[in-house]
Amino acid sequence: MKESVQISAIGVIGSPYRNPKDIHPLKSRFTRGTIEIFPEYEQGLKDIEGFSHIYVLWRFHLSKRIDLLTAPLMQPEPKRGVFATRTPHRPNHVALTVVRLLSREANILHVKGMDMVDGTPVLDVKPYTRRDRRSRISIGWLDEVERRES
Amino acid sequence: MKESVQISAIGVIGSPYRNPKDIHPLKSRFTRGTIEIFPEYEQGLKDIEGFSHIYVLWRFHLSKRIDLLTAPLMQPEPKRGVFATRTPHRPNHVALTVVRLLSREANILHVKGMDMVDGTPVLDVKPYTRRDRRSRISIGWLDEVERRES
Repeated sequence: MKESVQISAIGVIGSPYRNPKDIHPLKSRFTRGTIEIFPEYEQGLKDIEGFSHIYVLWRFHLSKRIDLLTAPLMQPEPKRGVFATRTPHRPNHVALTVVRLLSREANILHVKGMDMVDGTPVLDVKPYTRRDRRSRISIGWLDEVERRES
Repeated sequence: MKESVQISAIGVIGSPYRNPKDIHPLKSRFTRGTIEIFPEYEQGLKDIEGFSHIYVLWRFHLSKRIDLLTAPLMQPEPKRGVFATRTPHRPNHVALTVVRLLSREANILHVKGMDMVDGTPVLDVKPYTRRDRRSRISIGWLDEVERRES
């Protein structure tokens, strides 16, 4: 069960952000960029144009540590459990973002909603479906943070 | 960029399903089960109870191949690009499911919406937030399939 497996990038992010500190969690919703899928995987993009939104699984390649308790940027106190946050400093360092798919040119996807830095390794792309859309949700400690921000 | 990294399970799925063929993509939305987080990561679950929905990242551990073009169960023809589907036979074999979090007992999460078999390795758990909830979506080739099913 606990054996390790190898994963590797299927593509790379093109983003205006050079530094994670430049990425604002709310403003990045409007940030445009690209997902370049390596040519050997391009065939796997067939039919993706029909989807308005896609999941991008990517690697927090700049994080070198794991914090089981973490201080979120938007509200550093009290510390939260890592699995109740989207912090980079997590086991396996895998990130998840829903982006709007604007268009595709061969192996390049043009998207809106980038919250990654330029050069980020992409691990997978999946269609966002009706099952992923949950209408009545509660968001725990984030609720207070988002009320303050908006 | 293309170097490999190691990932390993942080927990394991407890599910009534023993065989992937028993999992119906629509009915599994109501299937209950557990996510057992290994004790060494339990501290990372602090504050997760506040969230009604969580993402589970897990490994398609039964799939040993990659199909860039794939025949989805619900509509086998024509073949679709793997990144326009949620098929197991994909690069890196990482899966994603949104589940309803019912309760937590120490390192065990009780959830609804299992579409994994018993014993599936869990790679990460993340809170589902407002940003993940997209209201107007189009779902490409899946649209026709879902209309037929419902």
